[in-house]
Amino acid sequence: MTQIEFAKKGIITDVMKKIAEYEGVSPEFIREGVAKGEIVIPFNPEHKNLKKPCGIGKGLKTKVNANIGTSFDYVNLEQELEKLKVAIEYGADTIMDLSTGGDLKKIRESIISNSEVPVGTVPVYEAEFRVAKEKGNIFEMTPEMLFEVIEEHGRSGVDFITVHVGITLESIKRLRNQRRTTGIVSRGGGLLAVWMLHHGRENPLYEEFDRLLEIAREYDMTLSLGDALRPGSILDATDRPQIEELILLGELVERARKAGVQVMVEGPGHIPINEIKTNVEMEKKFCKNAPFYVLGPLPCDTGAGFDHIVGAIGGALSASYGVDFLCYVTPAEHLGLPTPEHVKQGVIVSKIAGHIGDLAKGIKSAWEQNRKISEARYRLDWDEQFRHMLFPEEARKLYEQRRSETSACSMCGPFCPMNLFEKYVEEKLDEVIKVKREGV
Amino acid sequence: MTQIEFAKKGIITDVMKKIAEYEGVSPEFIREGVAKGEIVIPFNPEHKNLKKPCGIGKGLKTKVNANIGTSFDYVNLEQELEKLKVAIEYGADTIMDLSTGGDLKKIRESIISNSEVPVGTVPVYEAEFRVAKEKGNIFEMTPEMLFEVIEEHGRSGVDFITVHVGITLESIKRLRNQRRTTGIVSRGGGLLAVWMLHHGRENPLYEEFDRLLEIAREYDMTLSLGDALRPGSILDATDRPQIEELILLGELVERARKAGVQVMVEGPGHIPINEIKTNVEMEKKFCKNAPFYVLGPLPCDTGAGFDHIVGAIGGALSASYGVDFLCYVTPAEHLGLPTPEHVKQGVIVSKIAGHIGDLAKGIKSAWEQNRKISEARYRLDWDEQFRHMLFPEEARKLYEQRRSETSACSMCGPFCPMNLFEKYVEEKLDEVIKVKREGV
Repeated sequence: MTQIEFAKKGIITDVMKKIAEYEGVSPEFIREGVAKGEIVIPFNPEHKNLKKPCGIGKGLKTKVNANIGTSFDYVNLEQELEKLKVAIEYGADTIMDLSTGGDLKKIRESIISNSEVPVGTVPVYEAEFRVAKEKGNIFEMTPEMLFEVIEEHGRSGVDFITVHVGITLESIKRLRNQRRTTGIVSRGGGLLAVWMLHHGRENPLYEEFDRLLEIAREYDMTLSLGDALRPGSILDATDRPQIEELILLGELVERARKAGVQVMVEGPGHIPINEIKTNVEMEKKFCKNAPFYVLGPLPCDTGAGFDHIVGAIGGALSASYGVDFLCYVTPAEHLGLPTPEHVKQGVIVSKIAGHIGDLAKGIKSAWEQNRKISEARYRLDWDEQFRHMLFPEEARKLYEQRRSETSACSMCGPFCPMNLFEKYVEEKLDEVIKVKREGV
Repeated sequence: MTQIEFAKKGIITDVMKKIAEYEGVSPEFIREGVAKGEIVIPFNPEHKNLKKPCGIGKGLKTKVNANIGTSFDYVNLEQELEKLKVAIEYGADTIMDLSTGGDLKKIRESIISNSEVPVGTVPVYEAEFRVAKEKGNIFEMTPEMLFEVIEEHGRSGVDFITVHVGITLESIKRLRNQRRTTGIVSRGGGLLAVWMLHHGRENPLYEEFDRLLEIAREYDMTLSLGDALRPGSILDATDRPQIEELILLGELVERARKAGVQVMVEGPGHIPINEIKTNVEMEKKFCKNAPFYVLGPLPCDTGAGFDHIVGAIGGALSASYGVDFLCYVTPAEHLGLPTPEHVKQGVIVSKIAGHIGDLAKGIKSAWEQNRKISEARYRLDWDEQFRHMLFPEEARKLYEQRRSETSACSMCGPFCPMNLFEKYVEEKLDEVIKVKREGV
């Protein structure tokens, strides 16, 4: 049985209990959320090393995913495992292996067995890659091959998979009518679209959605419904093809839930900052509060080299509106395959974004953490501050780099406003107000 | 005459013309904005080297300020001049010299003569510092000394000054009633508050506001009304003392405009992301669209070491709601005096934040830049992409770090979705849709 099936039957599983404890909520809260489909727990029992499962969805802390994996040009398993380690060290809640170069099976299995957090994949990459390698072009892929790869991912312990189920011949037509600036920018979605056009066939993931659900159910692989038509430029954001796809995904969410399959929905991508709220609200409505998993979003197209910052800006805001799951963006986005250092930077800024969103969501532990820091800051209690910071080591390093002779930091030294005023306000204020009033 | 006096008389000055050209608007648009007080031009004629003046306010690109300056613990003029250079190189529109260590006069004059962008200061620092040095404590400061320093700043070419005019004995009382987590965190505001309590006297900047206006008018120093009661923790955000001060600042804005003095208003500080909109709207209402200049804002207290990121998140959002002027935050915020590298990082992320805000504001040139990038991106025209990026050198460096054998980047290589689909959609779609329809 899958987590949603247990939940619907009123059963609280061990993993639900574990997640409840981490989130500071009751196990019943988790069970209810999973039963409704408002919370998912990517947790394939075949992923034997999954020590840190997580819940994603309503009422829980915003989660962060880090994409790792080889590319055609850079195949280095050691380095991918290093990225995995760095990502988890800095707080990534899940990992996606997006490898498209080298021995994909070996890489995937190695990442799964080394990952104590849930692992996601995009099986269409492997299916297309295999067929391109064996037959010389991607068009030789058959639906059979694609479903075989999906099943293999389930067997090997993949916890969630991105499936571009919402791109159809009809939506491709709509895309053409739209005349976008950047057409399709989803790698998996684009591959499927050309395959569909080449063969004049419907998307097999859509056409045989029930078959997909059966496999997902068997391994309790959470489906992450991919947004093949996400905008690749802010000029294309919130357009008709994007939103039509989202509407279709909403219908498929309902079918998945009915079939006992956990499901979440993916979202953009490039969106102007003032359209983020609308995008989140539409997903929540159309998809009946299915957990929303966004890539970035990036509120400008011009930030290459610093797209992790751009993504953190969009991510924080989207989380504040209810996005549940942030896919990080690294400084290498739009420029190349990220290095472990890029992974680190991407995770850090995404965790900050999620935390900022959590405050807007009213997550109690996040508020408590901010209260403790602020109280310690006002007392100039540095150790206590570092204890509650999101990244204590990095903060301490900067603090030590330029110490002050005083108990304050070297920015203000003896002119530090913290506490300067406090000792006066209680002692002097009554007296002063009195003098002032008598003077009037 | 000051810029606002010229503008009110219907005169378009040379600096207005220059700014109109940079902003891509008509000189009359600038004149009208300045006359209304919705645009300020910090432009002290005594600042002889001011080659890049800027307009700040409604309808214009969001501007970024970089704070530099020595502290008690770190006095190194060479390094401050290096920070100045780095800040301008990465796009800071203005600089504030917040020095509180060393020979303040010499440092200030050196920064002004080396800065081709407007320079701001906080004169109360220098007044308090002088008196602390000469008399051993800050309480010996007299209003006379404070106004003398302000006048001296005007004479030496300072283009705008932060003046904490809105903290009064009444608002200090309100502060006590509020029982904040972090009391007063404004360095200048805190110093004034303890001085006021010590002497049982009203804030001289408030009491003698007309005298302040006279000096500001004489040198056309734009007044930046400081928010002494800004929150230093998200727990203190949008509270009664903060908003009462803002209300008073709104009244003082009107007095300044009437006196022919350009004026803008400063804002927080630490604000949860979901309270940023309210803060911007209140300033715009109470202060009748006076340009709003915010520090960050920081939507969490826990990000030390990465507060530039936290500030960019708050800054982008606040700019999208209409904030005109972002004061950068560096990674060293809350930890120490920033280094030139920190200045660089702070300016970069703030420029990104401002740009994201500009898109929400509908700034045409920002949209045009994003369109050009996205079109080039879709064509895989790398040189054209770099030409329009916010930070082309950094982007190119990352791109070169990991090149692909293909014309795409090393993330996707031959699987790059850009253009992959394009060539199919026009060729195949009509045919495919037809086949599909006939099949139905």
